[in-house]
Amino acid sequence: MVTKLAILGSTGSIGTQTLDVVRRFPDRLSVVGLSAGRNTRLLTQQAEEFRPRFVFAAGDFVCPSSQPLSPEEMAAHPDVDIVVVALPGSAAITIVMAAVRAGKTIALANKESLVSAGEIIATEAARTGAVLHPVDSEHSAIWQCLAGESSPPTRLILTASGGPFRTYNPAELSTVSPAEALRHPSWRMGPKVTIDSATLLNKGLEVIEAHHLFRMPYDHIEVVIHPQSLVHSLVEFGDGAIKAQLSPPDMRLPIQYALSYPQRWDNSALPRLDLTRAGRLDFESPDYARFPCLPLALEAGRKGGTYPAVLCAAGEQAVALFLAGQIKFIDIAPLIEKVLTAHQATAQPQIDDVLAAGQWAQETAITTAEKGILFC
Amino acid sequence: MVTKLAILGSTGSIGTQTLDVVRRFPDRLSVVGLSAGRNTRLLTQQAEEFRPRFVFAAGDFVCPSSQPLSPEEMAAHPDVDIVVVALPGSAAITIVMAAVRAGKTIALANKESLVSAGEIIATEAARTGAVLHPVDSEHSAIWQCLAGESSPPTRLILTASGGPFRTYNPAELSTVSPAEALRHPSWRMGPKVTIDSATLLNKGLEVIEAHHLFRMPYDHIEVVIHPQSLVHSLVEFGDGAIKAQLSPPDMRLPIQYALSYPQRWDNSALPRLDLTRAGRLDFESPDYARFPCLPLALEAGRKGGTYPAVLCAAGEQAVALFLAGQIKFIDIAPLIEKVLTAHQATAQPQIDDVLAAGQWAQETAITTAEKGILFC
Repeated sequence: MVTKLAILGSTGSIGTQTLDVVRRFPDRLSVVGLSAGRNTRLLTQQAEEFRPRFVFAAGDFVCPSSQPLSPEEMAAHPDVDIVVVALPGSAAITIVMAAVRAGKTIALANKESLVSAGEIIATEAARTGAVLHPVDSEHSAIWQCLAGESSPPTRLILTASGGPFRTYNPAELSTVSPAEALRHPSWRMGPKVTIDSATLLNKGLEVIEAHHLFRMPYDHIEVVIHPQSLVHSLVEFGDGAIKAQLSPPDMRLPIQYALSYPQRWDNSALPRLDLTRAGRLDFESPDYARFPCLPLALEAGRKGGTYPAVLCAAGEQAVALFLAGQIKFIDIAPLIEKVLTAHQATAQPQIDDVLAAGQWAQETAITTAEKGILFC
Repeated sequence: MVTKLAILGSTGSIGTQTLDVVRRFPDRLSVVGLSAGRNTRLLTQQAEEFRPRFVFAAGDFVCPSSQPLSPEEMAAHPDVDIVVVALPGSAAITIVMAAVRAGKTIALANKESLVSAGEIIATEAARTGAVLHPVDSEHSAIWQCLAGESSPPTRLILTASGGPFRTYNPAELSTVSPAEALRHPSWRMGPKVTIDSATLLNKGLEVIEAHHLFRMPYDHIEVVIHPQSLVHSLVEFGDGAIKAQLSPPDMRLPIQYALSYPQRWDNSALPRLDLTRAGRLDFESPDYARFPCLPLALEAGRKGGTYPAVLCAAGEQAVALFLAGQIKFIDIAPLIEKVLTAHQATAQPQIDDVLAAGQWAQETAITTAEKGILFC
């Protein structure tokens, strides 16, 4: 039984690591489709190696050995068993929706789709039979800990590395450069999620995702700072037992588990954790005052409606402005907050409302930043 | 559906905690039988509270409201759903065998039976359909981590607190008194297992149990010192993922899980773990030189045959001699080693061979200690 994959976003961090996993299991995984953005050079190499039936890139890219097919069409194609959504950003929402409408199994690495449209995706998935396999290390850990448990969990505990500025004071945070923020202490990831890890916005988005993935009320989801990034998350049950998943930080493990589930596949290329070499695991509470993106995100999640979509889109724009040198690191949270405050939410949004709210939030973030009232 | 229990060893540490769990779930658990040794006063109280059909105590004890029935007969009685074997020591072997022959579900807190007669129990259980539910916190943790996993584990990692003398040097170890050794840093347990925790013999016995319970080769079982006793054990899989079970040290959790499996029951009386209050979890390798009972036990396990029975029985006798002030703490390991060295093993023992080897080991431990060649 070979599982046929469409890997959307194949040239990014998750995409290339997914192909690393595919290379290890030529008898179990095959690539039916690849899509990328502007990195057509790498995409061409990937197409030569994996010979997918479908290839897509932005612009007028043509791959001689493959048919062109849009990511939305690949996501819904009957010959695809698992759609790997490795695209960053809100642009993936319509692609995820296409896969959900087609009743696919989706290995989901994209945060924004579930955060922005969690209720819509859950409702549609219940109708079509679509299944989400989380690829984030935290949600994968929770999913692994829930395996075989017939009684519902009482608490989800998401771990956060705390990012590179965990121990910084407010003065130090005010002078952080993009280059510093892109240096994550434990994980190799794309630029957007790396900055979001430094602000802890990422962890807020993950709490919202966990709420939707595991149908868990926000009051039963906690965030714990764990600088070593070895415990990827924990689940508590009604008898007080906690289960945790541990491993060296390597995204290939959650990627592989999303493809092998409910089995596990032996893979000696994945690193092993030596607890006595690690020596100790630390846990502390997150500091909401120094990392205000986290409480902002939790509040947007609790409010629901179109607030999470605005959170995502304003966050994307704020990070882009920071990386472009147009706002400071400590301006990211106030900018997102300003956009959220200005938002007129829709309570039971449809997908078009979500997309419109995101569009509005991006534009509002730019104009707010340009006004520069809050910023240097 | 009420699960009917026979609690053998009801007045000991595990027995009384089992009754604490029963008190929480009057609609799910009922007590059909109780057995105890000499603590007939507590047994009488328990019989008055739980009104079991069968009661047994050593000597000519009679309980007015219950029928007398031997522990072996209770263990095999058709009206018993789960036999809780909470008796310490090698004396429980024949009782466990009676339950296994009757095809019972056995909540097993007794170490010596599985260590001494692991192969025999496994063979007989395969024939009768008997099932073992581990009650030890370590084996319960492993069992919980294996739930829902269809792929076999590649490594079991048993945690050990390291006991009260983890940081002692050899000179300090040489003057340890029974009272000091009975003060365990994290667990409330009976005297035998508390001393075994201080020598790490206990962890060696648990490795042998894990070998039998989970059919795992010794090379794939590790021991890690974890002084906080919050991570109760871990399991690694072929993809490098590790699962761990955590909770505050409280035996009522593994007892309850052995009775509720495969479900979990909400129990607010069981303590919850606050990771940020715990702050840190430490892990280090055990020191075989300072704690020679651990390598002795592992060697006896690997050799198999009647060696593990001799290990158990010599260990019981050595602890009794230490608690009686007849040998020193640091004499425990050399005494066990001398008995193991003198043993003429039987390779494929039957249950009578196991019992005879244990009997021989106890006598040999006493005569060896009396000779006092090694000892003060």
